[in-house]
Amino acid sequence: MFSAGHHRILSTLSRLGAMSRTDLARALDVSKASISMLVRDLIARGVLREEAVVFGQGRPSITLGLCSDAASFIGISLHADPTTVVMTDPHGRILARYVMPRETDPHACFEGLARAVDIVRKRAGSGAGPIAGIGVAQPGFVSRDGRISLASTALGWVNVDVAGGLSAVTGLPVFVENDANALILGEQLFGPSGDCPDFSLVFVGDGIGSAHIVNGRLHRGHHGGAGEISHSPIALDGSGALPCRCGNRGCLETVSSLQAIRGAARQAGLTSDIDELAAMTADGHPEALAILHRAGAALGIALAQLVQMFDPSQVLVILDPALKDSVFGRVLRQEMETHVLRRAGVQTTLTLRGLEDDSFAKGAASLAAQKFLFGNEWT
Amino acid sequence: MFSAGHHRILSTLSRLGAMSRTDLARALDVSKASISMLVRDLIARGVLREEAVVFGQGRPSITLGLCSDAASFIGISLHADPTTVVMTDPHGRILARYVMPRETDPHACFEGLARAVDIVRKRAGSGAGPIAGIGVAQPGFVSRDGRISLASTALGWVNVDVAGGLSAVTGLPVFVENDANALILGEQLFGPSGDCPDFSLVFVGDGIGSAHIVNGRLHRGHHGGAGEISHSPIALDGSGALPCRCGNRGCLETVSSLQAIRGAARQAGLTSDIDELAAMTADGHPEALAILHRAGAALGIALAQLVQMFDPSQVLVILDPALKDSVFGRVLRQEMETHVLRRAGVQTTLTLRGLEDDSFAKGAASLAAQKFLFGNEWT
Repeated sequence: MFSAGHHRILSTLSRLGAMSRTDLARALDVSKASISMLVRDLIARGVLREEAVVFGQGRPSITLGLCSDAASFIGISLHADPTTVVMTDPHGRILARYVMPRETDPHACFEGLARAVDIVRKRAGSGAGPIAGIGVAQPGFVSRDGRISLASTALGWVNVDVAGGLSAVTGLPVFVENDANALILGEQLFGPSGDCPDFSLVFVGDGIGSAHIVNGRLHRGHHGGAGEISHSPIALDGSGALPCRCGNRGCLETVSSLQAIRGAARQAGLTSDIDELAAMTADGHPEALAILHRAGAALGIALAQLVQMFDPSQVLVILDPALKDSVFGRVLRQEMETHVLRRAGVQTTLTLRGLEDDSFAKGAASLAAQKFLFGNEWT
Repeated sequence: MFSAGHHRILSTLSRLGAMSRTDLARALDVSKASISMLVRDLIARGVLREEAVVFGQGRPSITLGLCSDAASFIGISLHADPTTVVMTDPHGRILARYVMPRETDPHACFEGLARAVDIVRKRAGSGAGPIAGIGVAQPGFVSRDGRISLASTALGWVNVDVAGGLSAVTGLPVFVENDANALILGEQLFGPSGDCPDFSLVFVGDGIGSAHIVNGRLHRGHHGGAGEISHSPIALDGSGALPCRCGNRGCLETVSSLQAIRGAARQAGLTSDIDELAAMTADGHPEALAILHRAGAALGIALAQLVQMFDPSQVLVILDPALKDSVFGRVLRQEMETHVLRRAGVQTTLTLRGLEDDSFAKGAASLAAQKFLFGNEWT
């Protein structure tokens, strides 16, 4: 669809925001003449537009920006039940959404998703650009080429050709990714942390997902296993180490995940509703406090280990808003900061952000948007 | 000295070993004619040589290799007292060495090192190539450009211009690096793990150093703090957490470092000699066993955390040979393997290797060798 030159312009504008032809030529280290030719072509194709005249030193210049209706992208989150389907523009703004029960039979799942794509297309109306592709975020392992769901316990999928199956019923290109990876890629493209070349993301759900951007790229690990912090050994204080579904004991998720918190609350005879538990800690309920304190502390220590080993610029933790604003969030920050080596002025930033309904679906949409903007440079 | 084209040939031969002009052209995706021209030039300059005629399909071909006397490199280890100075060839073979007391006054240190460089130059004799540069491995933080020792507790140095000072007295280009980083860069250039694009190294000394190669490059972290596993919180079981020199408690080095092992042994009224302690565990001495068991287990758990978070292809642990062959090494392996999530067929490899006298100095020499072979592509 686009040449490498087109993609370099699109990705630069997406990364750095609107800029003039002169600034683009400087950023890409090519002549202004060749930039002008490519820009003319992209304007004619309805992808770029002239946004504003900027008066500075010398001649006034015109900034160029991505057209909101240059293309749109479908994002599908199979992270949890229900399934969320969104349509976004190239800036990550959500144009339409649709929520449906999660279907785990692959064939029925793809058929249902094809109908959902039609529904969000209609809901978005005529103002949206043509759909350039579909991104899918799913729990478990995905092949490096973003096509095959290799193994997902939650979905019961082993070697399911998601890209092939969903492409066949929608006629659109499909890109599949692990849910935590989709979340960090969405943050990189659409979010405020996107300009950090090295940052890590941790998601507190029923398990604990994580992902890393290293030198501007997703770090998958040698065997695709980077980010499996959920099974990092943390709670090894003798008889207190709880058994984990992976077969080990004392994994981080046996203490800090939502499932672990609910389990501990039930065992203490308390409600397993996270909002209610968090409210109880605000009232000083000692058992509720002990549970959320222990869960937050264990995650804080795991994050300190991550920082000591890899020194990202930022750790972004995405979690239930009730947890974020409770003692869980406070202890998490305190433990991490306590156990990180102090050095003058240069500390990794910890950011806690409440999970939003569309976080994973937006991350999924970013997979398709990245292919549109970056082409094959991006893998 | 060399063009970018020369460096691409030298770095390819260094990475992949001797190969023919045809294979070089294919590996670098350029015409055989331009390869032949550059190779002719490098042969005339005494850097490459024709090594062997290979008979295969079609015409016999001649493999090209780096000349052992193309250049030589000085490696200086300030890792510990005494200071070790070596001279290596482009393959990392040690041609000469000299050991001297470690001097911490910068001026006296540089003067002494200049004399040591003259000594190893003479010891290497006339067969060695011209010295292309000096690499220095030192404990502590080093500036990103490899010139300034920013902070080294062991040397008492703050903002010492090592490259400038040592260059002034030797007339040679100088490249400085943190000791663990120099060790992994030496492994990457000269060692058997060099062809892994993602691997981690951990060094067990008085502290515990570590370093990571990610996507073929040294991962320094956002603030230059990647690899500070020594202060990763590990031993947090209540009152058992020992105070660490960093101000925290329960850091990995308070349990697993040589200093921690010696301290625990002294406190138990045992010898603080590592060889003797290791020998006592072989005889089943219960207190010696408990100390080395605990030290090895804590490191094994820290390595499991590293593997769960970043999934390197290999973790290479460099340690005292006596520790390696003792219960420390066995428990280390067992704990790491126990706490890593099992996945079919794809596990991170753990390699234990005994520290050699010249390990750090050889790593230091690799800093200069990399500049010679890779030019500025390498930073």
